[in-house]
Amino acid sequence: MRLPVLYVGNRNYSSWSMRGSLLVRLSGLEYQEEVIPLYMPEGRERLLEISPSGRVPCLHIDGLRIWDSLAIAEFLHERFPAAGIWPADPAGRALARCISAEMHSGFTGLRGALSMDIRASQPKTDLPEVVRSEIRRIESIWQDCREKHGAGGDFLFGQWSGADCMFAPVVSRFRTYGVGLTGAARRYADAVWQRPDVQGWVQAAAAEPWEIDFNHPGGVRARLRPDAGRI
Amino acid sequence: MRLPVLYVGNRNYSSWSMRGSLLVRLSGLEYQEEVIPLYMPEGRERLLEISPSGRVPCLHIDGLRIWDSLAIAEFLHERFPAAGIWPADPAGRALARCISAEMHSGFTGLRGALSMDIRASQPKTDLPEVVRSEIRRIESIWQDCREKHGAGGDFLFGQWSGADCMFAPVVSRFRTYGVGLTGAARRYADAVWQRPDVQGWVQAAAAEPWEIDFNHPGGVRARLRPDAGRI
Repeated sequence: MRLPVLYVGNRNYSSWSMRGSLLVRLSGLEYQEEVIPLYMPEGRERLLEISPSGRVPCLHIDGLRIWDSLAIAEFLHERFPAAGIWPADPAGRALARCISAEMHSGFTGLRGALSMDIRASQPKTDLPEVVRSEIRRIESIWQDCREKHGAGGDFLFGQWSGADCMFAPVVSRFRTYGVGLTGAARRYADAVWQRPDVQGWVQAAAAEPWEIDFNHPGGVRARLRPDAGRI
Repeated sequence: MRLPVLYVGNRNYSSWSMRGSLLVRLSGLEYQEEVIPLYMPEGRERLLEISPSGRVPCLHIDGLRIWDSLAIAEFLHERFPAAGIWPADPAGRALARCISAEMHSGFTGLRGALSMDIRASQPKTDLPEVVRSEIRRIESIWQDCREKHGAGGDFLFGQWSGADCMFAPVVSRFRTYGVGLTGAARRYADAVWQRPDVQGWVQAAAAEPWEIDFNHPGGVRARLRPDAGRI
C-alpha cells in the first residue's frame, strides 16, 4: 500500500508547509514528505498536478487531497483523537482553535514584513507600527495560553499541540529578524525551537538547494543556490 | 440563565459576522445577537471589551469567548454533531473544511476589490485579472462540490452546511458588483440567496442605520446614514 504523502513547499520559506509537516508528525501518521520547489518551473507544474488550490501543504490520503493546514489539523484530529492535535479540555480546545484560526487568517503585516527565511539572520530594527502591534498580540496570546493552560508542559497548552505547530514558523521569523522577547514569551519560543521535530525541519531547510528572491523587481525569482552542491 | 451571545459587526459590511451568524443559526443554538457598529467610537470601545482579538464575530458561551468563524464552526460541530455543520461523510467533511479554510485565508484580491456591501448595487466591469482568477476558482469549487457531493439538495454538499455559510457573503458580493455566473454556479448562488436565514440577514443589513466609507482618503469613516430614521 502506498503511504500517504504530504506535499510541502521549500522548507526554508514555506511557513504553512512547516505547520502541516509538524501537524502530521504530531499525529503519528506514517507518511512520506515530498518537497515541491516553489517558483521553479518544475515546481509550478507539479503544484497544479497535486493541489486543487495550487497551494501547499497538501496531504494525499485515502484518495483525498487535503490542501489546507487547518483542514489537515481537523482531519488528523478526527483520525487520531488521542494524538493531542487539540487539547483534551473543551475550553483549551476552543482557545487553541481560535488562536490557530487567528494565525491562519491574520498577522498580514508580520507575514509581509518578516517572511519566513529560516536560514537567514537579518535583524531589523525599524519595524512599522502595524507589525509591532501584531508582535505584541502574539506575545499576549502566548502569555495568556501559558498562564491559563500551560501547566504540565512547556507549550501553549502544556503538551505540544496543533496550536504550537501554528506558531512555530513565527518563532523562526522572530529569530531571523531579531525580534526580542522576554519572560514567558521568550521561554516558550526557546522551547519550541529546541524541539527535535522543529530542529529536523530547520536542518532540512538549511540543506535545501534553492533560494528565492521575493523582492525581485520583476516578480518572485527562484534559482539553485550557487553553493548548493557544497552543503 | 443568560443566553449565549454572538457579537457581530455591521450586517451590511461584515462578511465574517454573516458567516458566524449563519453558522450559529444552522447549529440550532438558542442565542442572542448583538451588533457592534464598526468604526464608530462606541463600537471601537465595545469591540475591545468583548473580543480578545478585537475582531468579530465573537461567540460568548459557557464562559468562553470564541473569536473566529472557523473556531465557532468547530465548536458548534462538537456541540451539535447532528446539526450538519460539516457533512456526515468523511470525504465530504474533509473537502468542506478545505474550501472553508481556503475562503478563510485566501481570496484577498476579491475581498479587497469587492468588499461586502449588501445594500449596494455597483456593477463593475473592469476587474483586475487577479480578481477574475479568484472568481474562476470559486466557480470551480462550487461546481466541483455540487458534482461530487451535491446530490440530495441545492447546496455544496446537498443539504445546507457550514461550507455554504462560508460562501454566502461571496454570493452577496457577486450580486452587488454584477459578477455574472452561469450553469451550476448560478443555480447554487440563487439557492443560497433565497434561503430564509440569508434573506433575514440581508433585510437586517438594509435596515441598519450606519454607513461606512472604506475608501475615505483619511482612513475608514463610519457615520449614521442621513436617511436612517426613515427606513
